[in-house]
Amino acid sequence: MTDIAPVLAEADAALPSSLETLFDLIRIKSISTDPGYKQDCRAAAEFLVAQLKSIGFDASVRDTSGHPMVVAHHDGATADAPHVLFYGHYDVQPVDPLNLWHDDPFTPSVKEHPETGRKVITGRGSADDKGQLMTFVEACRAYKKAAGSLPLKVTILFEGEEESGSPSLKPFLDANAEELKADFALVCDTNMWDADTPAISAGLRGLVGEEITITAADRDLHSGYFGGAAANPIHVLTTILAAMRDETGRITIPDFYDGVEETPSQIKQSWDKLGRTAEAFLGEVGLSKLAGEQDRSVLELTWARPTAEVNGIWGGYTGEGFKTVIAAEAHAKVSFRLVGEQDPAAIRRNFRAFVEARVPEDCKVSFHEHGGSPAIQLPYDSPLLNTAKDALTGEWPKPAVMIGMGGSIPIVGDFQKMLGMDSLLIGFGLADDRIHSPNEKYELTSFHKGIRSWIRVMDALARQPA
Amino acid sequence: MTDIAPVLAEADAALPSSLETLFDLIRIKSISTDPGYKQDCRAAAEFLVAQLKSIGFDASVRDTSGHPMVVAHHDGATADAPHVLFYGHYDVQPVDPLNLWHDDPFTPSVKEHPETGRKVITGRGSADDKGQLMTFVEACRAYKKAAGSLPLKVTILFEGEEESGSPSLKPFLDANAEELKADFALVCDTNMWDADTPAISAGLRGLVGEEITITAADRDLHSGYFGGAAANPIHVLTTILAAMRDETGRITIPDFYDGVEETPSQIKQSWDKLGRTAEAFLGEVGLSKLAGEQDRSVLELTWARPTAEVNGIWGGYTGEGFKTVIAAEAHAKVSFRLVGEQDPAAIRRNFRAFVEARVPEDCKVSFHEHGGSPAIQLPYDSPLLNTAKDALTGEWPKPAVMIGMGGSIPIVGDFQKMLGMDSLLIGFGLADDRIHSPNEKYELTSFHKGIRSWIRVMDALARQPA
Repeated sequence: MTDIAPVLAEADAALPSSLETLFDLIRIKSISTDPGYKQDCRAAAEFLVAQLKSIGFDASVRDTSGHPMVVAHHDGATADAPHVLFYGHYDVQPVDPLNLWHDDPFTPSVKEHPETGRKVITGRGSADDKGQLMTFVEACRAYKKAAGSLPLKVTILFEGEEESGSPSLKPFLDANAEELKADFALVCDTNMWDADTPAISAGLRGLVGEEITITAADRDLHSGYFGGAAANPIHVLTTILAAMRDETGRITIPDFYDGVEETPSQIKQSWDKLGRTAEAFLGEVGLSKLAGEQDRSVLELTWARPTAEVNGIWGGYTGEGFKTVIAAEAHAKVSFRLVGEQDPAAIRRNFRAFVEARVPEDCKVSFHEHGGSPAIQLPYDSPLLNTAKDALTGEWPKPAVMIGMGGSIPIVGDFQKMLGMDSLLIGFGLADDRIHSPNEKYELTSFHKGIRSWIRVMDALARQPA
Repeated sequence: MTDIAPVLAEADAALPSSLETLFDLIRIKSISTDPGYKQDCRAAAEFLVAQLKSIGFDASVRDTSGHPMVVAHHDGATADAPHVLFYGHYDVQPVDPLNLWHDDPFTPSVKEHPETGRKVITGRGSADDKGQLMTFVEACRAYKKAAGSLPLKVTILFEGEEESGSPSLKPFLDANAEELKADFALVCDTNMWDADTPAISAGLRGLVGEEITITAADRDLHSGYFGGAAANPIHVLTTILAAMRDETGRITIPDFYDGVEETPSQIKQSWDKLGRTAEAFLGEVGLSKLAGEQDRSVLELTWARPTAEVNGIWGGYTGEGFKTVIAAEAHAKVSFRLVGEQDPAAIRRNFRAFVEARVPEDCKVSFHEHGGSPAIQLPYDSPLLNTAKDALTGEWPKPAVMIGMGGSIPIVGDFQKMLGMDSLLIGFGLADDRIHSPNEKYELTSFHKGIRSWIRVMDALARQPA
């Protein structure tokens, strides 16, 4: 095994050149949603292949029915170390409205941020995801130059359609599963907790969507003539939806919590130390009190607990004024955020049974499925997570934290489902990077210490058995 | 007091002539909603004034800002008898779609009904309300001719805007209160129970309308990021609406049943005898089981019990597909049907307090008022009702029944509020008269026995003290 001090020194020394390479990539207008930039997307892929080849990767542009993929391989110094698949995307969001940009989105520079005084890299894609993916490429370059080899076997997959729904990704994974399969994936498309605190996303909640329609009479009824005698489907629906949770916020659907584990207390303590209060989190949107399950912290509720939310409801007369109608139908869209080992199919089945048991005899219910995916949860005590955590902690002012994500990142599920790989989500973005908006930026520190972080992480991962 | 046998005989003898008069009235195209028939409306008013003058009424056409009123007065034979105000309307509904009429809507005739084989009077307004109001006019004519006088003092009010919302009615009642005030009103714009069974509507339910808006966050939220921590206004709303009734269908709003009396058991028994089963009533609209309060008959539920109905509900994403949004707002339109002495203002106040007590601390609720009117309920043991009931029973194959009405007839409330008068609602229409539709008809028996009924009712009312 190599001492990484010279590798880190090489990364420091090469920073001006690494920045130039990133600038060259940002200058390519690889907007994937706009067919006018099709050639730019290909140019970005070709640029990355050239960069990877210059480091010694066996790299190629791989055509799809949309924008091309970049796939590259490099062996590690020993066969003992794990094999990793690194994922990033070279396509970027459109830049409209252009007049809100202080600097040309495709003419990157390093400047002092007017508010924080910190040095930032400007330009579309600087954070999402060109700056992030280049932290890994430049880490490989420094490793290769200083140590003569990479510490572990690396496969790289860059896609060019992430900002347009990744239509080619699944077919490509499917067709190239053998080539892309590694021990686990590294995904660099997420944020740090704050500018001083690196973060690993250990859990992503899953999702089940259901649409439900309650039907009562075969037509809308006059509430004077029928009111008091005829079933009102809005009553049926609201009663069922209200029954889904008890007074403590706990979901009452049978077996709903099957597969939900309590978050380990040391993880909860580490979240508490992050200092995200309910008042601060909710205060941003005009609220102040936690809803949902009682006696749980805001981070636990949004990262580690399942939910049942009504996302939409409608029925009867909803226009101006008033109509004394008893509706024939009432509807709701309901979604469940899943954690741990909750089974989307079981959640859907139990929800439907819960509803059906509460529909009066002569009303009917129908369901429409709107997708389902399980949660992704790495065990908090997995060596993979802890190794990466320690490596990151060595680089940054504050110790790395393992966080959850309330939403989902589809690629992580695809890697798990199609290639049987866990993903290690490590990124160096900040919440104020303005990705998808005018004046996107990436902190110069994110880029520099991001490169150094990957050197440390690769080194640490290489030291643990595959 | 007069023996009414000769009066009834006169009505029988005059039937062909009475029919001719009704036909003349039906021929006038008094469609109040269409400005093209303004002159026809006035012609109908003038025709009625002429008819009433021919009987000896002091009758006149009275201008309003819309179509004119007809007001007429006639003294009774003695000063002891009560003074009645008879109300009807001479305007009719439009006739579209004309191609669905089997006979010209304004060329009345008597023909055999193709389905029932009974003789019917055809034409727009034959039932609603020209045929009905003429039963009273022709009763007066027969009385005057056979007895030389009317048995009680009669004031007549015919309006010409009932089918277009009665915009001139309240101002006219207000401006002419002194002239129109009587001991009670007779309103002929309702139905019999069935072709053999006359009915008096003793109760009309009142109505309170409320719109409620629950506001949570100050914007729509992403359910991944905020779900589990942020209040969902749809949850708040559905929970409150579901809490409005208990498992027996009883409304849980405090003091909701203040002013609600149990229907006397002999009235309930008479309703039971009418044989309207839940299965038959609900079967027409595809339902079979009674909703609402347990252990009450369908007639009790729709005539004599109050309700709380959600007439509309909406919030969040209601379009195609799915959006994992937590809405900022949720809305419902709620109405209450009132009976007995329930106070609309108290119901509204108690409902709002019920809701406010259930809105979480950092959500907000706002209310929008959509009208309110008390129930109209004549005491079932009132001499007025019983006198009329006995009189009707004398005329028809089956005894008269006192029924309720689930909806409301605004004129009845106006008479009570503005003139302090109860109304006796007696009409001879049938449920299949197709009012407001093509092929409106009025049973010849309704017209003939309707005239005879009014003779009996006037006679009976004259015998009881004012």
